[in-house]
Order: sequence, then structure tokens, then C-alpha cells
Amino acid sequence: MLTPHHDGSPLHVSTQHPALGEVVRVRLRVPEGAVGADGAPIGPLAWVGTRSNPNREPRFDEARRMPPAEPADGGERDAAAAAGERESGRPGVDGSAGWSWWEAEVGVENRVHGYRWLLVGDDGRQHWLNQVGLSGVETRDRDDFKLVAHAAAPEWVAESVLYQVFPDRFAKSGDAPFDRLRASGELPEWAIAADWGDALDPVPPGRSKQVFGGDLDGVRERLDHLVGLGVNLLYLTPVFPARSNHRYDASTFDRVDDLLGGDEALVRLVEAAHARGIRVIGDLTSNHSGDAHEWFRTAQADPESAEREFYSFTDDEADGGHGYESWLGVPSLPKFDWSSAELRRRFVEGPDSVVAKYLRAPYSLDGWRIDVANMTGRLGEVDLNAEVRQAIRRTMLDVNPDTMLIGESTNDGADDFQGDEWHGAMTYAPLTRPLWSWLQEPGSPAGGGIGFALGQVPTFTGGQFVDAHLRFAAGYPWRTRLGTMNALDTHDTPRFATHARPGTVPVAFGLAVTLPGVPVVWAGDEFGLTGVDGEASRTPMPWGSEESASVAPVLEAYRALVALRRANPVLATGGIRWLAVSDDAVAFVRESAEASVLVFATRAAATLTVAPGALGAAAGPDAATRVFGEAALTASERGLELTAEGPEFAVWALPGVRVPGASVVE
Amino acid sequence: MLTPHHDGSPLHVSTQHPALGEVVRVRLRVPEGAVGADGAPIGPLAWVGTRSNPNREPRFDEARRMPPAEPADGGERDAAAAAGERESGRPGVDGSAGWSWWEAEVGVENRVHGYRWLLVGDDGRQHWLNQVGLSGVETRDRDDFKLVAHAAAPEWVAESVLYQVFPDRFAKSGDAPFDRLRASGELPEWAIAADWGDALDPVPPGRSKQVFGGDLDGVRERLDHLVGLGVNLLYLTPVFPARSNHRYDASTFDRVDDLLGGDEALVRLVEAAHARGIRVIGDLTSNHSGDAHEWFRTAQADPESAEREFYSFTDDEADGGHGYESWLGVPSLPKFDWSSAELRRRFVEGPDSVVAKYLRAPYSLDGWRIDVANMTGRLGEVDLNAEVRQAIRRTMLDVNPDTMLIGESTNDGADDFQGDEWHGAMTYAPLTRPLWSWLQEPGSPAGGGIGFALGQVPTFTGGQFVDAHLRFAAGYPWRTRLGTMNALDTHDTPRFATHARPGTVPVAFGLAVTLPGVPVVWAGDEFGLTGVDGEASRTPMPWGSEESASVAPVLEAYRALVALRRANPVLATGGIRWLAVSDDAVAFVRESAEASVLVFATRAAATLTVAPGALGAAAGPDAATRVFGEAALTASERGLELTAEGPEFAVWALPGVRVPGASVVE
Repeated sequence: MLTPHHDGSPLHVSTQHPALGEVVRVRLRVPEGAVGADGAPIGPLAWVGTRSNPNREPRFDEARRMPPAEPADGGERDAAAAAGERESGRPGVDGSAGWSWWEAEVGVENRVHGYRWLLVGDDGRQHWLNQVGLSGVETRDRDDFKLVAHAAAPEWVAESVLYQVFPDRFAKSGDAPFDRLRASGELPEWAIAADWGDALDPVPPGRSKQVFGGDLDGVRERLDHLVGLGVNLLYLTPVFPARSNHRYDASTFDRVDDLLGGDEALVRLVEAAHARGIRVIGDLTSNHSGDAHEWFRTAQADPESAEREFYSFTDDEADGGHGYESWLGVPSLPKFDWSSAELRRRFVEGPDSVVAKYLRAPYSLDGWRIDVANMTGRLGEVDLNAEVRQAIRRTMLDVNPDTMLIGESTNDGADDFQGDEWHGAMTYAPLTRPLWSWLQEPGSPAGGGIGFALGQVPTFTGGQFVDAHLRFAAGYPWRTRLGTMNALDTHDTPRFATHARPGTVPVAFGLAVTLPGVPVVWAGDEFGLTGVDGEASRTPMPWGSEESASVAPVLEAYRALVALRRANPVLATGGIRWLAVSDDAVAFVRESAEASVLVFATRAAATLTVAPGALGAAAGPDAATRVFGEAALTASERGLELTAEGPEFAVWALPGVRVPGASVVE
Repeated sequence: MLTPHHDGSPLHVSTQHPALGEVVRVRLRVPEGAVGADGAPIGPLAWVGTRSNPNREPRFDEARRMPPAEPADGGERDAAAAAGERESGRPGVDGSAGWSWWEAEVGVENRVHGYRWLLVGDDGRQHWLNQVGLSGVETRDRDDFKLVAHAAAPEWVAESVLYQVFPDRFAKSGDAPFDRLRASGELPEWAIAADWGDALDPVPPGRSKQVFGGDLDGVRERLDHLVGLGVNLLYLTPVFPARSNHRYDASTFDRVDDLLGGDEALVRLVEAAHARGIRVIGDLTSNHSGDAHEWFRTAQADPESAEREFYSFTDDEADGGHGYESWLGVPSLPKFDWSSAELRRRFVEGPDSVVAKYLRAPYSLDGWRIDVANMTGRLGEVDLNAEVRQAIRRTMLDVNPDTMLIGESTNDGADDFQGDEWHGAMTYAPLTRPLWSWLQEPGSPAGGGIGFALGQVPTFTGGQFVDAHLRFAAGYPWRTRLGTMNALDTHDTPRFATHARPGTVPVAFGLAVTLPGVPVVWAGDEFGLTGVDGEASRTPMPWGSEESASVAPVLEAYRALVALRRANPVLATGGIRWLAVSDDAVAFVRESAEASVLVFATRAAATLTVAPGALGAAAGPDAATRVFGEAALTASERGLELTAEGPEFAVWALPGVRVPGASVVE
């Protein structure tokens, strides 16, 4: 893997959030001894530059070779050799680090401006570099690197570690509404009351009607747990009144469910979280409401009502249908028709919309996760998805631009996630499923929600893991990758720990905190909870077990890995370069001008060899400081050797990357 | 390459042009001994089916195994063995042909409905099959097979062999307007008159102003040449008045250029062509007009005019600009602004539009090729491309649905060519450039127009040729592939013959007539003309040289290959299955229920081995009838051996493919 490198990080792209028309400097690094996709050395270069595609017509911009970096303090660089290289005018390597750097200027001509690198050897071979990697034949636009001139996400998005809470199952406050209403016989008629220690009922109606009674004050009272864990972003699944424990079937968006403590409890929770440096985002269902929603009730009762056009009524009742379009045909979840201007006004557009209301005081949510974003506005020949997501973000920018917007799209989201306007995806394609395939016990089942075909986890080698990860991640612009959820699991999926290979939970979460994206802790993962599908993973939190022999080490691993992420900003925004892969091990670096880290993850005993020079001359074993894990880093004649005795997650701190031409560093 | 197979052809898809909501039966073939992407045998199958993505949410449809085919007349099938297989309930092979067939039902839920195949082995391995091929890890939506519920192209589109004429350079009629006007001193002031035998002037202004005086009656008088060649579709580059020899800078769309004979000459030509069974399509510039266009003149002269909004005027003159947006900054080609409703009305919408006028009598053109389709309607943050192409086709459907619409998009056109509404692309990414890279002399230059980076042809192996071909072709739905131009070159590119490896012109054109797509003869290719770039390839036709020693064999090869295409309908609409590839050779079959052909193409002496069973039991050497070329087809213990002594293009006729379950065959 000694190949030319580029990614969207500040080391390689001068402006993370360019304006339309701005000229951005992009940089390519070519290591000494780099090889092409065919495995043969690339050799001397006749031309290096970028290929853009403004208005869909190709444009080539030649890069210039950057002068070698100044020696670092105390460096032992051979100045004469460096001068010789500089004067030779031939491509070679930066003597200080084993890399040559090239820089091109790219004008941002469209809001999403794709580009890729082309290196032409003296031998005439062409080497194309895009987000998937290196190719000896021309590549497709879809995999280009992207410069995005849409409104940017707040900086804190990429710096977040997300903690996901399903309110009914997280914690009951001392004065839980559920207990009061249960005692007085005033629970909603649909609710099947359960005690905190009861088993989950996996069968309908209990599956969605069993209520354990967690509430928002319960979350507030447990915020110190989040502080202890080190997370800084709380994501609450829906809090609006509904007729299920998951509340994705909202009956109104006008207020917070009384069972959760009502509006005041949400206000108290957000205030308390903010006081602890934790932001809070909510969850909106833009694809559908519940069939008990006030809009739907009105629409059904009165064909002349304004709400009638909010949904797609049909005449399919004679064919066994229920008379309206719904989410996957489920009658309790009628699908919105976004061609309705009035629906847009009430729900997503302007300061009085639902989207706006909860971002404003006194609620002051810090953003939204949008449920079923992938299907929103799509039905048959209608596709209003882009209009809806753009309208949502426009409203957010008006009300409070310092907010986050992520969309659920658990498969190939590339088409929708080019930067207008999702900051990131809740998705399982780029990381979750590949990670499971690499780290789950061979032959494991995987219940509904995670999207494995036929409920079975295919078993991958490390190479297949990286291949699957890159092919899906490549669909996103860099900045969208940084805002995308790195989840081992969520409230919709089985829990990763259920069938994980022994010892691999820290490996998996280690990768979640070190790969580009927002690490996710689905509440309970840090307690070692298991669950065979998306329903079974919603176990009430086992408070009080934190010190137990089975929980304490898991909790400690989570704390340490979140701390690792928070202590190393390069893990939030640094570039990523894959170094080596084998069936049982992967290694990569995250890099910035200030600091880098080397990551080594294994699922079994393994040794990986990293080519000499891959980390630059400065980064031998002596320059690396172990900051996590027990694996060994040694030098051999073949390069650096990374060795683990079993499943292992190890991280070393490295010096930052010295960018040639000091003036170029921002 | 003994792998499961599916493509969009009638063998595998029950309905080529489904309606929205229609259920389509799709079929997968699995050969005995099939291997996965990792090279290991796939083995017994636990599940076979399709994964669709309606409204962007995955759906899996299980396939059923089809009963083995009835034995063909005179077949020697072992009925007992077949019955045993049928009863075992285990996947195996169709005893009659070495393949098992599977069929799934897929409902077309969106106008473009993607699907891919999933095969799950008893060993838990998952095998995904999409338009690129087989993958051991999940694949992206972009490469899915596609069912398209947009209006279909006429059937004759895929059955066409296109002959491209650049009117100024094709032929002068006996009474050429050019000669008359030249004699009377009335040639347009911009024109630089040339005699037919003169050399091309490669330098501006002669480059675009040198006029040789070909005219439409000249084309008409030479139609027997087209008949002799066997082509059945004539594509004329622009015929509207302009100020250049190429006429892509139209000064009006209201009439045919007098230099070409005016409207009457076009009417005469189309009538004469139709009388010979040759259809005729024209060429429209939807991205720009000339700066002498009457609309632009009015717009410039009068800021209050209706035409002002047809273009994008700017205030960049202070910065050295020319005051309006134009094609790649060329002042003579002002870019249209498609946000203008009046422009749409005059140009593309309704029966009085330019688009409609020339499809109606008396002109009766059979369709349009749209110039610079890729950039049309795109500028900065505006993208009206889909609206414009859809409007063009709507008008065509109203005026005459039996017409063809292709768009120029010479690179990765996947985003624009999903079926709304281009029937195909004039593109160089899927075939032209890969073919050049495989068959041009190593190190060849390639002048402007064909899109090679830096004007150099990278050299590919056969494997890289197929890889590059498939990755770009995979972006198109099957039916769009069938309408896409298979061009070795065009009026915009250097000529293929210029630096072709010796003996490879028939190989290249052989692939153009046997791969899915519309074969293209750029007038003069059949005379062996050369040209180093898109301008130099516009040599006046060397009439009279047909019998010369250098031209006669080229002409004969073209005639024979066009005849091959026309005589074998399977080459127009049959499926394609790649059999084997080496550095110097490729082999594939085109298949239908009625007939199949085996194609073997080499650039040097080579032998390819095709696995036993790859062609089915019926297709040993005895079943194959050689219909083109000199290569040898022999049986060995390893399978079928294809052997060529040098550059070779060879084709064998094979029996059609017997589809199991006779009732299933349409």
C-alpha cells in the first residue's frame, strides 16, 4: 500500500468549506517507491494534476511539485541532497520524509465539484487516484473527491461522540410520570406496562406496546454517566406523543409526550446537558406520521380538509389495501405527500414549523436526526427528497445555523449525501455491516434492522472489510464522511456484542472512534448488553451493574476509547491513509500537520508489515508513542512490524506531517 | 469466467419496456462449477434472488429454480438424470446445457428500478451480481441492473448501423451551390474556399473557415455507397446556416444552409434515403448557438428583447470577459439559459419548436443527436439538464414517437443516461477510449476531441480493456446501452486508423458491430482515412479510390462486418457474456433464444481457453459455424480453445439458448 495519497483533510485541501467560485489548493503526496494499481513501480512522473468535471465537461489542472519541507528542529536532513533534488527538476521524494508533494489549484465551479488525480509516468502509464483508491484505467465521476460549496456543518459535528438514547428504556426519574399514571390507572390505553427488570416481549403487540416508563428527567438525572463516558452529543429517539414505545408513529409534533415528562422535561434536560458541555439532537419522522396523528385524523375524517393533501390517499381498499400510502405498507404509518405546500409550511419551512420550533428556546435542541430520510418524498414516479432535505436545512440555518442535521439512510446513500444538506448519514453500509462481517463469529445470524441480506452475517477478510468500507464511504464527500455515524449498532439493529468474536468489542469500537465519522455509543453497549434484533436491543439500562465483573471492563474500554478520540483531534478531522491489510488485521494512520496517530486492529494473532517510508522518515518506532493497546511496534529490514497476540486494538501517537513549502500551511 | 450470468436481454428479462407497476420476470443462469469473485467454487446454493431498492429501501425477492429445459429435437439428454435433478430439490445444473436457471419476479416501483442478484451459498458466502460483474461484498446501487419504465426507443434504434456524415466534406453534387456561389463571388464572407483535393488547413482561421463545398444533394447522390456498405442510419452533423465549416455555431435554426442546398435539398435527401431503407437524424446544439444567431444578435442589441433571457449575459467585461457565458469561454458560442420559458417554447417545446419542425413533413428527419448534451442547462449552481432533455423527448413523442434521440456525453454519462430520455449516448468512455488503449500502438498520441488525458493513449491489456468497458457501460441501463454509439472515432476525434496496431482496424470495427450498441462508421473510415485530431479527421472523401489497392480491402472489411451485424439480429439485442480475456485477446458470446454468436478478437497471436460448459453442452466446435475470420476453434481437455496467429477478428454462429420451462419463453 505504498501508493500516492490524497484525501479531503486540511493536509491536502486548503479550504474545507469553499465558496462557489473559490480556488482551492489540493495536494497529492507520492511516496518514494510508490506502486500503481498493477503493483509495478510508478517511477518517474511526466505529469501530475487533477481532472475536474465542471458542468460535466472535463478540465485538467497541472500540479506543481512543492519544494521539500524545511528540516524540523533537530532534524538530520541532508541539505545538500535536498538541494540536489530541488535542482534536478525531476520528480523524486522529499528527502525529509520520503514523499514528494504536488499542489494543484482547482476552481470550485459547481456546488459539488468533483476532482480526481492523474499521475502520468515517463513510461506512459496513467494512474488515477480517487476516493476508492488507485486505478490503472480511467475512473467514474461518482468516486471523485469532492469540493462542496453548500453551507457547512458546524465544526463541533465532526468533534462529537454521540450517545444514543431510546427514552422509554434509558432511565426512570425519581418522579416518573409513568409510575404516577400507572398508579392512577391513567396510562394510555395502548400501553402495556412493564417493570424495569421485566423481560422484553418480542412478539406483537408487546413488541411495540410494552412500556418501561423511562422519561426525560430520568435521562437528565443520569447525565453524569454520559460525562463519565466522555460523550458530548446526546441523540434522543422521538419524544413526541405516539402509540408505541418507539414513538416513530407520532400522534402530534406539537408537544413532548407527557409520559416522558412533557415539554418542561425536555427543556430541563437540554439545559442540564448544555451545562455539562453535551449537545442534544432530536428525531423527526419526515417520511410518515402515526395514523393517530392529528393531521392524519383530520385528513381521514374530512376529505375537504387542508390536511387531506398531507398524505397520499388511494382507492386500493377494494384490493385489500388500507386506502392510503404508508411506510412499507404498515397501516399505522401513513406516508407524507411532500407536494403539499401546507405540509411543508407546518412541518419544515419557516420559523413556525416543527423543525424550527424545537431548535428555538426554550427547547434549544442542537439539531435533528431525520428518520427514514432515504424514502422521504419518494413514491413511484415522484421524488421530492432533495427538496425536503434542503427545505429542512434552510429552516435550520435561519433559526440557528449552529445545528446538526443527519439523515437515516442505511444502505448506499451516495446519491443523497453530496452535501445538500445532510451533514452526515445514519448508515450501516460504509462501516457497520463491513465491521460486523469482519468481527462477528462466522455464521452469525443478524436480526432485522441492520440490513444484512437474509439475516445472515457474511464473513469477510480484512481485505474485504476495507474494500466494502471504501466503496461505500467513497460515495460521500469528505466532510459528509466526518459527520456520518460510526455505529456498531443502534436502536434499530441487533447489538454488536451478541455474536462478536471474543475480545473484538474494543476492536470494533476502537475502529468507530478512529475512522472518519462520528463515533456512536448506543446506550447499553457500554454495559455489554446484547440483543438479537432491533427490538431486542432496546433492553432497559441495567443501572447499578457498573461495578460488576462483567460490566466494569466493558465500561472502562468504552471510557478509554472515547477519551482517546476526544484527546486526539486528528481523529475528528485528520486525513486517513491505509497502510496494510491482512485477513486478520488492518492498519492505517490519521494525519494532520499537528499530530498523527497510527492504528492497528486485529481479530486474531497477526503481524502486519508496513513498508519503510510509509510513515515518513520521522516515524520509526522511536517516534511512536503507544497511547492505547498492547500490540508491538518494531523495526525490521522489511519496514515496521505491527504484531498482536490476539484480538487487539492499538494506537500510537506520531509527529504531525510536515507540509512542504511552509507558506502553504494554513 | 465461469460465473453466474444475467443481463438485460430478452433471455433474462421478460419485458424489455415495462410499465410502472408491472411485474417483470428476471432470470439468472448459474453454470456448473461456477466460481465466486474470490475464485473459489460457489457450490450448492441456499438462496437465490434479487435485491431491489424501491423508493430507496431494499426489498428482496426470492427466485425459484426453473425446471430443466425440454430436450431439443435430436438431443441426447439423459432424461433419468434430469428427473433426478429435478427431484433432488438441490441447485445443480440443467443437464441439457450445464446451467441451472433461476427466475424472480420484480415489480417496477420507480421509473428506473434497480435490482441486483444475490446468491447465498450453503457455506454462507454471499455473491452479488450486478452490471459490473460478481462481487463477494455488497455492491452499490449505481451498478445495479435497471428496469426502465420511461418511454422506449423505437425498435429500429438498436438495429441501426450508423453512418456519420460531415456535410462540407462528404460529396459535392453535380450542381453544388458552393461552386455556383464561388463562381459568382457570393460565398459567405467568412468562408475560405478550398478545392476537394486540397490539404486541410489545421490552423485557425482555416481550421474552421476552410470550406470544401460538400452539399446535401452530394450526399443524396452517394447514397448507393451507403447502401453498398449496408448501413441503415445516416447521421448528419449540423445543416443550419453558421459561420464555420462545422456549423456548430448556428446563426439560425429556421432553415437549412443555402451552401448545403437549402431546405429542399434536405427534403430530397431524406426522401431518397427513406426510399433506400436508410433513416436520417440531424444534429442540434442545445448548449449554445453561434454569436451570429438571430436570437443572440437581438439579445445583444436590445436588452429589453424577449431573446435577452435566452443567454446568460454577465458584467465580466471589465475582467477581460466578453459579457456573456459561452461554451468553454469561446466567444463565438454563447451558452443558452434554459430557465427561459420562451427559449424552451421556440426551441424544444411543442409542435412549432425547432425540435418538432424538422421531424415533421416535408423534412421528416428520424431523430436528433444533441450536441454537448452533457453541459446543456448546466452552469454553476444551475442544473436544468434533465428538464431540457425531457422536454425535447416529450416534443418528439408528440410529433413522431418513431424517432431517435441521442445525446453527446463523451465521458462518464451515467447520471444523465438512465432512460429519461436519451435513447443512447455519443460517448467515448465505455468503448472508444478502452478500444484505443487496447489496439493503438503503444505510446500513440491522440489529438483533441477524444478525451484522452494529455493527448496520450495509455496502453491497456485485454483485461484492462474489458474492465474499463464494463465500468462505464455498467452505468447505463441495458436498453440505453443498445442505443449508444459504438464509435471507433467521429468528426470530433482523431481517426482510429492513424496509429492503430497493424491489422487491428477490422478487430476494432468487429468489436463495434458485435458489442451491444449502435455501430458507427464515421465517413471515410471505410476508405482507411487517417487524421491526428478532430479537425484533421474531417478530410474530404476520396471518391474514386474505392478500387485502389489500399482502400479496397478496408472497404471490403467494413462491408463484411456491417453485413455480419445486419445478418445477425442477436448482435443488436442479444445478451452478452464474457468468456475469457488475456493481454492480447478477448472472447464473448451474444445470446438469444433464436441464435447466438461467439466472438474472438485478438491484437496479436493468442490462444484463449473457454471453460467446458461455458457455452452449454450444445456448443462444442461441431455446433459452431464459422461466419467471420480465420481463427481456429478446437476442443481440448481444458475446454474450447480459440487460437489466432495474429490480429484477428472471428465469429462463429451457435445455436440459440434453450430457456428452461418452455412456457416462460416469450
